[in-house]
Amino acid sequence: MITGWILRGGRRTECSFDVDDIHEMLRQTDGLVWIDAMDPTDDELEHLAKAFQLHPVTLEDTQHRQQRPKIELFASYAFATLRALSVSDDDSVRERELHAFVGPRFIVTLRFGPDPFDIDHVLTRWERQPELLSGGFAAYVLIDEVVDDYLSIVERFEDLADDLEDEVFQEGGDDGGTRLQERIFRLKREVVRLRRVVVPLRQGLDLLQEEPRLAEGPLLPYFRDVTEHTLRVAELADNIRDLLTSLLEVRVGQISNHMNDIMKKQAAWAGIILVPTLIAGIYGMNFLHMPELSWRLGYPMALAMMALSAGALYVVFKRKEWL
Amino acid sequence: MITGWILRGGRRTECSFDVDDIHEMLRQTDGLVWIDAMDPTDDELEHLAKAFQLHPVTLEDTQHRQQRPKIELFASYAFATLRALSVSDDDSVRERELHAFVGPRFIVTLRFGPDPFDIDHVLTRWERQPELLSGGFAAYVLIDEVVDDYLSIVERFEDLADDLEDEVFQEGGDDGGTRLQERIFRLKREVVRLRRVVVPLRQGLDLLQEEPRLAEGPLLPYFRDVTEHTLRVAELADNIRDLLTSLLEVRVGQISNHMNDIMKKQAAWAGIILVPTLIAGIYGMNFLHMPELSWRLGYPMALAMMALSAGALYVVFKRKEWL
Amino acid sequence: MITGWILRGGRRTECSFDVDDIHEMLRQTDGLVWIDAMDPTDDELEHLAKAFQLHPVTLEDTQHRQQRPKIELFASYAFATLRALSVSDDDSVRERELHAFVGPRFIVTLRFGPDPFDIDHVLTRWERQPELLSGGFAAYVLIDEVVDDYLSIVERFEDLADDLEDEVFQEGGDDGGTRLQERIFRLKREVVRLRRVVVPLRQGLDLLQEEPRLAEGPLLPYFRDVTEHTLRVAELADNIRDLLTSLLEVRVGQISNHMNDIMKKQAAWAGIILVPTLIAGIYGMNFLHMPELSWRLGYPMALAMMALSAGALYVVFKRKEWL
Amino acid sequence: MITGWILRGGRRTECSFDVDDIHEMLRQTDGLVWIDAMDPTDDELEHLAKAFQLHPVTLEDTQHRQQRPKIELFASYAFATLRALSVSDDDSVRERELHAFVGPRFIVTLRFGPDPFDIDHVLTRWERQPELLSGGFAAYVLIDEVVDDYLSIVERFEDLADDLEDEVFQEGGDDGGTRLQERIFRLKREVVRLRRVVVPLRQGLDLLQEEPRLAEGPLLPYFRDVTEHTLRVAELADNIRDLLTSLLEVRVGQISNHMNDIMKKQAAWAGIILVPTLIAGIYGMNFLHMPELSWRLGYPMALAMMALSAGALYVVFKRKEWL
Amino acid sequence: MITGWILRGGRRTECSFDVDDIHEMLRQTDGLVWIDAMDPTDDELEHLAKAFQLHPVTLEDTQHRQQRPKIELFASYAFATLRALSVSDDDSVRERELHAFVGPRFIVTLRFGPDPFDIDHVLTRWERQPELLSGGFAAYVLIDEVVDDYLSIVERFEDLADDLEDEVFQEGGDDGGTRLQERIFRLKREVVRLRRVVVPLRQGLDLLQEEPRLAEGPLLPYFRDVTEHTLRVAELADNIRDLLTSLLEVRVGQISNHMNDIMKKQAAWAGIILVPTLIAGIYGMNFLHMPELSWRLGYPMALAMMALSAGALYVVFKRKEWL
Repeated sequence: MITGWILRGGRRTECSFDVDDIHEMLRQTDGLVWIDAMDPTDDELEHLAKAFQLHPVTLEDTQHRQQRPKIELFASYAFATLRALSVSDDDSVRERELHAFVGPRFIVTLRFGPDPFDIDHVLTRWERQPELLSGGFAAYVLIDEVVDDYLSIVERFEDLADDLEDEVFQEGGDDGGTRLQERIFRLKREVVRLRRVVVPLRQGLDLLQEEPRLAEGPLLPYFRDVTEHTLRVAELADNIRDLLTSLLEVRVGQISNHMNDIMKKQAAWAGIILVPTLIAGIYGMNFLHMPELSWRLGYPMALAMMALSAGALYVVFKRKEWL
Repeated sequence: MITGWILRGGRRTECSFDVDDIHEMLRQTDGLVWIDAMDPTDDELEHLAKAFQLHPVTLEDTQHRQQRPKIELFASYAFATLRALSVSDDDSVRERELHAFVGPRFIVTLRFGPDPFDIDHVLTRWERQPELLSGGFAAYVLIDEVVDDYLSIVERFEDLADDLEDEVFQEGGDDGGTRLQERIFRLKREVVRLRRVVVPLRQGLDLLQEEPRLAEGPLLPYFRDVTEHTLRVAELADNIRDLLTSLLEVRVGQISNHMNDIMKKQAAWAGIILVPTLIAGIYGMNFLHMPELSWRLGYPMALAMMALSAGALYVVFKRKEWL
Repeated sequence: MITGWILRGGRRTECSFDVDDIHEMLRQTDGLVWIDAMDPTDDELEHLAKAFQLHPVTLEDTQHRQQRPKIELFASYAFATLRALSVSDDDSVRERELHAFVGPRFIVTLRFGPDPFDIDHVLTRWERQPELLSGGFAAYVLIDEVVDDYLSIVERFEDLADDLEDEVFQEGGDDGGTRLQERIFRLKREVVRLRRVVVPLRQGLDLLQEEPRLAEGPLLPYFRDVTEHTLRVAELADNIRDLLTSLLEVRVGQISNHMNDIMKKQAAWAGIILVPTLIAGIYGMNFLHMPELSWRLGYPMALAMMALSAGALYVVFKRKEWL
Repeated sequence: MITGWILRGGRRTECSFDVDDIHEMLRQTDGLVWIDAMDPTDDELEHLAKAFQLHPVTLEDTQHRQQRPKIELFASYAFATLRALSVSDDDSVRERELHAFVGPRFIVTLRFGPDPFDIDHVLTRWERQPELLSGGFAAYVLIDEVVDDYLSIVERFEDLADDLEDEVFQEGGDDGGTRLQERIFRLKREVVRLRRVVVPLRQGLDLLQEEPRLAEGPLLPYFRDVTEHTLRVAELADNIRDLLTSLLEVRVGQISNHMNDIMKKQAAWAGIILVPTLIAGIYGMNFLHMPELSWRLGYPMALAMMALSAGALYVVFKRKEWL
Repeated sequence: MITGWILRGGRRTECSFDVDDIHEMLRQTDGLVWIDAMDPTDDELEHLAKAFQLHPVTLEDTQHRQQRPKIELFASYAFATLRALSVSDDDSVRERELHAFVGPRFIVTLRFGPDPFDIDHVLTRWERQPELLSGGFAAYVLIDEVVDDYLSIVERFEDLADDLEDEVFQEGGDDGGTRLQERIFRLKREVVRLRRVVVPLRQGLDLLQEEPRLAEGPLLPYFRDVTEHTLRVAELADNIRDLLTSLLEVRVGQISNHMNDIMKKQAAWAGIILVPTLIAGIYGMNFLHMPELSWRLGYPMALAMMALSAGALYVVFKRKEWL
């Protein structure tokens, strides 16, 4: 589904998106032409390719999902493949693909997926700064919105990593070992995935800033700002990843430590049971001449010896913190 | 076996590949001369070297297998060593070597192996875009086909890595430990091998784009596109490799964890057996004055004590999840 | 709360900070205009933005905390986001955010937080070198003070890391394992955090040295010096981080080693108890013809055998250092 | 021992190597002057230094062994320090040092060691291409021979690494653990050593290609080819090193796994022995009223119970693969 | 304590170091002015700063110890901070700080510490090559001496690392585990420290070679040579560090392996004791009808059974190499 708009002086009027009309608009208007296509069909894409004279390579790219985030410069436009991320309530990350080609006076957004990227906020910002509105500024706002989501996601990840750290170090936190490891591992994976999305975008932004028709003088600080944000996301992601890697290693040490504790306990209890067993064994011997056997209090004495030795061992092990 | 063709206007006509004929063709025709050699002998290679004035170094390279993937520029042609990969049903990767030298108006493909690289698909694409067909475009299509295979392979590896991840974390998945480790290790190896093939190819593509006679203006977006794809393969391969490395580490932790479980079980059962043994030992003592021994119900009482103590320990250990 | 000053000839006079007054001062005076804002409100920030013609992007940056440390060049000023660190008595690091924008003849400092960065020392240094005082020098002094704190913090971390190393290697230091690991881990985290603050600052300093209006000739050695210090902090931080990483690994080895010691002890004591138990078991057999049973000294002899075997095992294990 | 030759038109004539003669030859001849010195004394080196106007730094370098492989450009010559490697039958690597200084029309080779680098093959190649023979080409052939040896060594290492991999993963291959680890470790060391020799050589080759008097136009493809080979050696070495590092890690996991197996076995057998012991203990109790004791078949029944319980446990543990 | 000298034609004459005298000497003489200050006071440093017109930043640097090794270029001089290392008999590394500022015709050395850097050898080399003697050459010799010490230290470290490797792999070398780990760890630390000293020096040398007044044409090969040496030190240090890291990892594997050995021994001996205990338990049962009990040779037979079973188990475990 394609819709066309002309943005001029902070106002937006719907328009046709015929090949001829588009050419006409690009010639006449002093505003920005915005074409938005939701889940475009191959026919619609070819129509747009003709209207905006897209390179066959771009057309092919728009027809495939799971593209690497990138910004490419062509003769008359720049083509951007973005991945908008959002985190749902159960901390899983949703990915939505978003393509855009941008010329000095137009922007075409292609949005995909069952739950496409919500462009309302972008639109509000476009309408709020009509004096700056150009293809370059439109692209900046779009990318900025996407990167802002990255920032909130990476901060969410930072919180999750802090929680995991606390869990790893909390008293008695060494049970259910593998489950905790799995959570660390899976978070690390998400972080790495985020990083993979951010780094190529930053390269694309660097490239874009070399194209004077899109990122002219007054827009440069804006592009520098969003580049700064991608950098911050990438650095935070690196940090979290390293933190989680260390946590996994610490965890291995903890498991070994836990093993030591188990072994100490096992050894202590074995001693506490086996020493009385030895005493019982001694008084179970069949020697004819064993004076204790005929003592009136022999039996309680033997039981007392057992209890005493077990108790003494218990105290010793408790003191050595084996129990 | 050498065959020669002239591609012109989307049509292909067989031609001779005599040294003189080739020189003649390169002078006259406005099409692309394509010579294809399947498992060429040294004589044939020398013939081709003479016909296309190849450098001795190139000639020597074509006579050896197991070359590093590369693209080298010479005075009148570019020489590419490619490694076409394909994955067979049992997930093992097959490698086929493929050499090509390309001039503005000709391409020579050398294909090797018991099961050489299938060039049909390349041919179809050459014939479909006659207006672009030149040495550079022919090389682009060839490389693009090879890289497309890399992409499907790296995606296959991604699936396999996901499977391995699931197996590592699935409930009760800590048996048969070494076998799983071996599979992770071997997949990691394949991924590293793929990466080794992709990275030098990318360097070659960068080089090729600096040669105006092959990668002139209109072809640049195509070369940029295939470079983008090699980058994507390399990045995905890096990701999978890091994921598998982490998995191997997690696995070590799991094995230690599994050890803890075994130790807990062992300790628990030892207690359950040894405490009744102690009770039996006590009533096996030979004291004259042990009132219980003469009780009518002494024996069942002792058995009950044993059963009770064992049962109580069982419950305790079950609660502490040692059993 | 905003206060304005003019620094001239080593003396400081308070001044108004009206938009017009500031423009007037910047035209007339030969001194340095310094505006200091403590926890500025959004209104105050907009006022300052108007007075110094700040770019909207800068204004937005000053309105958000937790910025990445950076130095950005704009048409008429440089904008610096700094993070002043200080270490409190319990070795936790406090962070204070500090923004500044600097022109050739003015500096505006924005200080935030419940306990803002103390600017007195900076002021003393400004007043001490009136001949150098310019926007660039003022910025240098500010950054130098911040970096000096980094240096003392990284040296404090180095001491803490040395202490941890000693604890790891001290005789009998293998108890309380997880606690020590946690301390190593947390220090490593702080070190990484420090590094994250230093590295972008260094990039900013490199950028600043390319702006002739701020870092002109005579100031260059000063900027080079402070850059050198950030480098030193970053290198020391790298070192400490690597040291702590190795310590964590050594620790894992130690825990395994400790396990070996426990196992040896357990095995030794098991032997010392089980061999007498076997002897007791032998003399508890009910054979009719066991000559020892009727010996007068049979019982003491059996006890002696038990004691002897236990003692012998004790000596053997002691010699093998299993006990 | 020094010998001098003139190579001209594919033929080699012995010549004097007096300072004056050499100067004369360099002026007159159109061939290549080749001086070969085997284990030269300091006097001989100083003689050569005078004859070829070597820089004092070069002279000093030639007087010391264990130089880092390098190629340095001086005003009138290039100085190369090479390390020729060969692998002996027991897979240990022998190193031979080889120095050369090369001018446009001369090459001086210094060969050292009890078993110096064999130059025959180099000579054959010099004589085979008289039309290319110059100082640059002579240096190329020398380096190419050295690098070819690197290639066969790195391929030998690859085979050894594959063998180690198979040994690590073969069924029942977890015995003799430390020995296997040692072999992996030592091979890794050799690989790293090879890499250390190759990488600086590549840097030297890059440098050499910028010297037009040695590596002029027609020689460039040759130098590019040998550079390609060093790259291939370095890449293969990196691969093998990473593979061996992973193997060492896998090995640690395997040892832990092996430990699990031992523990399971130990626990199983302990159960199989201790349960009959408990039964024996029960019938060893001295209660007056134990009906089984007076049964005719009490004893065989008890033995049967023991055998049955032991057998049942055996089956259970066998099924759980603890035995 | 400051002393001044003029070096001219290989001879050295003492001179005053008054500010005026120094200016006079720098104007008149054709030799090199050398001022050497041993543990200079702040007054002396300020005196020197005035005499040689040092930048305040340099003055401040000379007043602080523990500087990062560096070489900085100023308008009329270069300032070098060096760290001379030497290894004492007990393999601990001593560090001495050494500052120098160098102009085309003068060098000022500042030596610190209870045991300052010995400059005699440097002096001998200055006097031996009077024709080259300039500020640049003087600096070269100084740095070369310092780097030569690095080379011998890194070679000493290499020997120590080889010793540690042998200890790790020697038969039965798995006792006293933690001590060996500590030694590996500490050596690794020293190696890293050496590396930290070398790398910035190399950067400084690169910088120095861009200053034509100090490192002019004829001196360049010398500077290139000492740069080469720092590179060699850095590479060797990297190698040793990697080797030691691997050794630490191998060690962890060995400790686990050792644990396996202990467990096997423990399990074997437990079996050897517990099986006879079971036999004793059987003949300790109180059944009325146990024919063996009344046999004449019942008791010796039982003992024989015990001995046999224990012996058989011993042989079995010995064969399986559990003992």
